[in-house]
Amino acid sequence: MLSFASDYTQGAHPAILERMSQLNLVQQPGYGEDPICRSAREKIRAACACPEAEVFFLVGGTQANATILSACLRNYEGVIAAHTGHIAGHEAGAVEATGHKVITLPGENGKLRAADLEAYLASFYADDAHDHMVRPGMVYLSFPTEYGTLYSRAELTAIASLCRRYELGLFVDGARLGYGLASPSCDVKLPDLAALCDVFYIGGTKVGALFGEAVVFPRKAPQCFFTTVKQHGALLAKGWLLGLQFDTLFTDGLYAAISRHAVELALQLRGELAARGYEFYIDSPTNQQFVVLSAEDLRRLSEKVEVTVWERLEDGRAVVRLATSWATTHKQVEALMALL
Amino acid sequence: MLSFASDYTQGAHPAILERMSQLNLVQQPGYGEDPICRSAREKIRAACACPEAEVFFLVGGTQANATILSACLRNYEGVIAAHTGHIAGHEAGAVEATGHKVITLPGENGKLRAADLEAYLASFYADDAHDHMVRPGMVYLSFPTEYGTLYSRAELTAIASLCRRYELGLFVDGARLGYGLASPSCDVKLPDLAALCDVFYIGGTKVGALFGEAVVFPRKAPQCFFTTVKQHGALLAKGWLLGLQFDTLFTDGLYAAISRHAVELALQLRGELAARGYEFYIDSPTNQQFVVLSAEDLRRLSEKVEVTVWERLEDGRAVVRLATSWATTHKQVEALMALL
Amino acid sequence: MLSFASDYTQGAHPAILERMSQLNLVQQPGYGEDPICRSAREKIRAACACPEAEVFFLVGGTQANATILSACLRNYEGVIAAHTGHIAGHEAGAVEATGHKVITLPGENGKLRAADLEAYLASFYADDAHDHMVRPGMVYLSFPTEYGTLYSRAELTAIASLCRRYELGLFVDGARLGYGLASPSCDVKLPDLAALCDVFYIGGTKVGALFGEAVVFPRKAPQCFFTTVKQHGALLAKGWLLGLQFDTLFTDGLYAAISRHAVELALQLRGELAARGYEFYIDSPTNQQFVVLSAEDLRRLSEKVEVTVWERLEDGRAVVRLATSWATTHKQVEALMALL
Amino acid sequence: MLSFASDYTQGAHPAILERMSQLNLVQQPGYGEDPICRSAREKIRAACACPEAEVFFLVGGTQANATILSACLRNYEGVIAAHTGHIAGHEAGAVEATGHKVITLPGENGKLRAADLEAYLASFYADDAHDHMVRPGMVYLSFPTEYGTLYSRAELTAIASLCRRYELGLFVDGARLGYGLASPSCDVKLPDLAALCDVFYIGGTKVGALFGEAVVFPRKAPQCFFTTVKQHGALLAKGWLLGLQFDTLFTDGLYAAISRHAVELALQLRGELAARGYEFYIDSPTNQQFVVLSAEDLRRLSEKVEVTVWERLEDGRAVVRLATSWATTHKQVEALMALL
Repeated sequence: MLSFASDYTQGAHPAILERMSQLNLVQQPGYGEDPICRSAREKIRAACACPEAEVFFLVGGTQANATILSACLRNYEGVIAAHTGHIAGHEAGAVEATGHKVITLPGENGKLRAADLEAYLASFYADDAHDHMVRPGMVYLSFPTEYGTLYSRAELTAIASLCRRYELGLFVDGARLGYGLASPSCDVKLPDLAALCDVFYIGGTKVGALFGEAVVFPRKAPQCFFTTVKQHGALLAKGWLLGLQFDTLFTDGLYAAISRHAVELALQLRGELAARGYEFYIDSPTNQQFVVLSAEDLRRLSEKVEVTVWERLEDGRAVVRLATSWATTHKQVEALMALL
Repeated sequence: MLSFASDYTQGAHPAILERMSQLNLVQQPGYGEDPICRSAREKIRAACACPEAEVFFLVGGTQANATILSACLRNYEGVIAAHTGHIAGHEAGAVEATGHKVITLPGENGKLRAADLEAYLASFYADDAHDHMVRPGMVYLSFPTEYGTLYSRAELTAIASLCRRYELGLFVDGARLGYGLASPSCDVKLPDLAALCDVFYIGGTKVGALFGEAVVFPRKAPQCFFTTVKQHGALLAKGWLLGLQFDTLFTDGLYAAISRHAVELALQLRGELAARGYEFYIDSPTNQQFVVLSAEDLRRLSEKVEVTVWERLEDGRAVVRLATSWATTHKQVEALMALL
Repeated sequence: MLSFASDYTQGAHPAILERMSQLNLVQQPGYGEDPICRSAREKIRAACACPEAEVFFLVGGTQANATILSACLRNYEGVIAAHTGHIAGHEAGAVEATGHKVITLPGENGKLRAADLEAYLASFYADDAHDHMVRPGMVYLSFPTEYGTLYSRAELTAIASLCRRYELGLFVDGARLGYGLASPSCDVKLPDLAALCDVFYIGGTKVGALFGEAVVFPRKAPQCFFTTVKQHGALLAKGWLLGLQFDTLFTDGLYAAISRHAVELALQLRGELAARGYEFYIDSPTNQQFVVLSAEDLRRLSEKVEVTVWERLEDGRAVVRLATSWATTHKQVEALMALL
Repeated sequence: MLSFASDYTQGAHPAILERMSQLNLVQQPGYGEDPICRSAREKIRAACACPEAEVFFLVGGTQANATILSACLRNYEGVIAAHTGHIAGHEAGAVEATGHKVITLPGENGKLRAADLEAYLASFYADDAHDHMVRPGMVYLSFPTEYGTLYSRAELTAIASLCRRYELGLFVDGARLGYGLASPSCDVKLPDLAALCDVFYIGGTKVGALFGEAVVFPRKAPQCFFTTVKQHGALLAKGWLLGLQFDTLFTDGLYAAISRHAVELALQLRGELAARGYEFYIDSPTNQQFVVLSAEDLRRLSEKVEVTVWERLEDGRAVVRLATSWATTHKQVEALMALL
């Protein structure tokens, strides 16, 4: 059955599997201290134009979020996120389980606005009782957001500048980073992230890898971050499996190329749907499209295609997420269009 | 370079990689709700002779330990382990990070003795101040232990019976379970574990898989365990990768066969070393052998083979761990012997 | 300097101090296992018409909230509160520090509405992804709320009934309980709370005691709650100091009488201010009054009286909290009125 | 009934209660921001000869321990304690509940030995796997220890010097500090503690106060420690009650004087018991004496006096703790002796 339900329904780019087979029986040291991981780290540093960056490979996004925040926040600090942020709603309280509050601000189209952030921070420090409250310690953004939207470089810079003024860390969740950077609407590049953030990660799970997120600390990792990774159950014994995937993705621009492919298909889908008069819930320039379908359209479509119902509207219609990925084919997009 | 440093230096059994390649582009639902996971669960239930068991697939051992204990312990409870238990010393405080104390008892050859457990429990409840102390909530054993040793069925039964008397859960960490079950000295079988434990896991990472541990609750999983797994960052997006590995390992007795192979090689190594007069630190009937080497022997060996120095003795000698795995070859064992 | 800044600016009702002096050198067992605590528990059970209730004495409100929630919530559960709830904003993340999320719903005048709660719960369970989200485990209300408002018995009953339908615990923070029960607008009595809640506490710190909150589990306390209290650093060594205070307050209706006194003064203040044309931010029938003052009025008043600025409005005016307590005198109220 | 069961069976020094009554109805700001607290802090700084010290008042010992450790340890760090340390066994896992491991070393007579500490630290950092282990972040000592014993200045200095070498904080739990400093065997003074420790506290609960521990950071408190105190439910609303007690105790040498009184009685008791041939479990120079009694002696004594049975020996005898306090009278000691 055809599926546009998400961007993690299939395995890995074939180049990864092939290399995995080649190296399968070569003995490697554990825990990421192998030459393939070293090579992958070097390539990521180069891609970020950040030769001093410290790079760690974790398995998944929720794990990366909780591990990073646990290492970066002091015991009395919380993390600020848009109310739609993944850590705020869809990680089963992973951040709170490490003892930290997720402080939510209303987002717009999935994005945190610098103006809202500034208002919150000003009001926090103006409150006589703020020593009785969770101290904001870090800002969490996702890029692209959970709604497929992007921050412009100017928007990111404004937020980063607020973070510096208020001594907050800036953390970008890049679970779908490739699909953001590859969008024609995007004016942010990897070196920009490295310049603006204290930590971000480059998503593999949704962008060509079987699993894996490359966590980048452009300046300095928190002390003993390796131990924190272990403590969070996030240290893969056969760490070279992660290194191998990122090393492959960051060779000859593969990560960028497969991301571009996915975005092109998504935008093609968007164009054709718009041409046929479909309404969009949100204007997404990346690999996830949120289209509004009537109950009848949804019923009919669901017989042939797996999609994610994002939200049911009060008028009976539904917001449906259609996600493309590195593995989506032109033929699949055509098959989908034929059903709509 | 030859390595006997551990049992997780290589990839996966080729049958796994082959099947991964075959299914690579087939679209699957996420988070373990796919048909391959269902099939793997069914095969594990059958192998455990426990049709009601609930089975979950996690990525690694430290992760599995913290997730299981967090779900099974009440806020005021701790877990009892031998002082050499993996959770007590080598998981960077993962259990404490979830708020629970690891209560250590002196072990013998890596094993918790029923007599010590009983003495501790009797003394705990006899202490007038025990309401000011961490309540024991669960017993953690590893099988085989960190020293390669095994509990007999009688020993396990004695511990399980104490657990029931004192209303403690019994949890067996089976990161190397295959290598235990496959030992000629072992009189415990999977259905015994299912009958005696509240939860245990079947290790994949060290026994033929790229990664993965199959967590088995023979009777009933803790409520909302899926959510706890997510909260601990232990829910693999592409859960079918875990299902596929265990489904393959539990087809046609592969798991047992490759485990037996590793143990046979280890026992061959043990026999030859003993014949040559080497002393053993501990008598292990499984895939890990702990041999005592002089400083000179160790220096010479280390030039050609990677081994793990387990402990340095006061007389200058060292305890060296030699681990075989499903992937070790006869040739490698011979090469090692040629160097000793 | 005159102060209406809060209801915890003074010591204890003189009857308490007197008795403390009398018993000062009598030797008592520690940790609340003394006869005075037993007597106090008995009196509270009688006042709640709940002979089976289990009663514990803790020192303060934030401590009580975190201890209770840590004992009542399972690891994957969070607590629902109005966004203005004390645990949501003014306890420095004490609940999150125990690993649990505070799930906030928009409140109205400090109150959680049954309709909002029902909508949230229905939508939570309708969401296909709810297993990836923090499970609601308990509802937290404050009575009176942080804004001095009260739930009617009908409102409480509606919420309690939703809690039962959705298997949620119901927890009422009664840090100012006396001032709620004593309000002429209140149709809830202690036995109603005992019938409707799973746990609530009777505030002492703000209502006649030096410190102390009496936590009541009308049916059954969580297992080993004593140990949880110890774990949270909330077990007073000289527990009889808590017992003595509640025993005194629950003798001859003292708690009710001193609460009534405070509320009468507050309502007198409200009446006189209203008569002089002052605007109120919220209509509070209890001991806290929230009056809107011009910048000039506030400046002038602040020279002579300590008040709490609750919020600064955009038009330059300020919401000022005026709190009476068991210790406030008619003369103080007159002095305040003379300044306004 | 006569009780030597502990040193917290009675209220407060009468000077405290008297002053509490005098100030009972004076309005004070909350949370320790009042003039009495300021005065008490100043007096403590003077007594410590440490004008820069930051001083906080908490309610009890377990609370102080967990709050301090939570503020001082990084997420991946644990605290080292003697296996008999209070945090290791008698605080219901309060430290672990904040996510940190208590790393226990075997103590001698309740004391951690510098040699054991050094051996542990050397071996920790020599272990290739130490990045997989809980990093030691702080050393916890109690002074006097749980067994009434004392560290000499030389011993404390040796430990402090190891702490500096290995970048560990040094924390002294002084729940019974007065009874240590007042011992004729003690060559440590408050300014020594201030010079050697990163944090310590001066116990009030057991030494003349109703409750309260004065936490002293001789150099610098952890950032936002006030917020951490609030987060741990350890911030007393009427903080002036704590200030008042310590202000009184640190006026005209009251704390030292009442401590001396208790120790003198304890040593008198020790002398007389020794003269009568009683055996001591441990040689304690402070207010707690651990005497070995036959089963018959214990039975007979228990009819008339409350004592704490510390441990039952295998030969049927029992170790009994006899504690004096600031409130113990000569007459009580004589009454006890008459029964032995």
